[in-house]
Amino acid sequence: MLPYFRRLDHLDLKADSSPVTAADRAAEQAMRQILAAERPGDGILGEEFEPVAGTGERLWVLDPIDGTKAFVTGKPMFTTLIALVERRIPVLGVIDQPWTRERWFGDGTRATLNGQPIQTRGCTALEAAVLSSTAPGMFQSEAERAALARLQGATAAMSWGGDAYAYGLLAAGCIDLVLETNLQPFDLAALVPVVTGAGGVITDWQGRPLTLDSAGDVLAAGDAALHRQALRTLGGCGTS
Amino acid sequence: MLPYFRRLDHLDLKADSSPVTAADRAAEQAMRQILAAERPGDGILGEEFEPVAGTGERLWVLDPIDGTKAFVTGKPMFTTLIALVERRIPVLGVIDQPWTRERWFGDGTRATLNGQPIQTRGCTALEAAVLSSTAPGMFQSEAERAALARLQGATAAMSWGGDAYAYGLLAAGCIDLVLETNLQPFDLAALVPVVTGAGGVITDWQGRPLTLDSAGDVLAAGDAALHRQALRTLGGCGTS
Repeated sequence: MLPYFRRLDHLDLKADSSPVTAADRAAEQAMRQILAAERPGDGILGEEFEPVAGTGERLWVLDPIDGTKAFVTGKPMFTTLIALVERRIPVLGVIDQPWTRERWFGDGTRATLNGQPIQTRGCTALEAAVLSSTAPGMFQSEAERAALARLQGATAAMSWGGDAYAYGLLAAGCIDLVLETNLQPFDLAALVPVVTGAGGVITDWQGRPLTLDSAGDVLAAGDAALHRQALRTLGGCGTS
Repeated sequence: MLPYFRRLDHLDLKADSSPVTAADRAAEQAMRQILAAERPGDGILGEEFEPVAGTGERLWVLDPIDGTKAFVTGKPMFTTLIALVERRIPVLGVIDQPWTRERWFGDGTRATLNGQPIQTRGCTALEAAVLSSTAPGMFQSEAERAALARLQGATAAMSWGGDAYAYGLLAAGCIDLVLETNLQPFDLAALVPVVTGAGGVITDWQGRPLTLDSAGDVLAAGDAALHRQALRTLGGCGTS
């Protein structure tokens, strides 16, 4: 993707011939080639090409560019997401930022950033928590916007932008809460083993574990008590 | 500042004893020491310490950490801003990101990123433009929110987050428009020579040049024709 980063002479998010699409496809193709060579029996679910049906339980879920708008605006907070999923449940996750050379890895019991163990921050008070979310436009229904407003009103500060990178920062102890909705399975799967591996909690807005079949509403917290407070503040609404 | 980046064990944006304040002060102190040694007759206006009255026309305007929320959440998009101002008009600007090691420089006639000349992108159609802004909370009045909604509705895509870093990306040809309001003189001054030096246009929401006395509403564009279209879309509202 890097040959295209900060070298787009115009915006073209949708057209098949756009440089963004070219970057997306090149990155997914590179990952698929490695998987075909190293894990020929595994299934693949990627954003850009047809699914590959595997012969076993293992499914690789690939999102070559998470944070397309960050990518096209030159903000180094887009990432590549790779998840290994077994029986619809994410068991390994990678969040990779190739320009800053940051790579998060998690397997649900431990998490690392560039090989160093990381853990979430033990902020247990909602009124002291820092909340992050990618964009207000994610919150499409009145109920979703009201839930965001309640959580934003109950926390100490709000930072916008970040996409999957924000979940990496939560795992590294820099952010206390991430609230998002209307995400795709591609966007979700890799986040789960990283956040839980670092000691955090990540569920839908009802408190249920995230799987490939989740609806796309996400609440991540660095601390279990904080997650419970945030869930109560959301008040049980969500897209599911 | 870097000793504090991603090493904050809790959020404390306001308290005098907070690590954020310590980082802010350490950076401003370092800049003041250099200015005292190298430019003893110049005035200094900084966010953290008392103004220094100079003996001549030159005033240095310092913002050690622009993008405090980016800094406290570990997002590498906070910057240090340095402007040289003469008769209230910014004539030199530096936007510096110390963690990614990116430094923008501009003097109103040219601009560089890490020493390489940069220029804005010639996007002249509002409907193809990429808009960026730091946070919806900046837009405090109904009129400001309505102006943002009009511009957002007229452009191709919107990216949130960025603070002064977004103006650097506009100067480098990655972003077409930045719309913000309620900024401080500290936040504004360094942006002007960088954006104009790269071929862009930066004014208040009335189209007037920015000075130390501007009210804090900002519209930056990579192209003069695009700036005119965006101004018309805003419809002449603003904080001033």
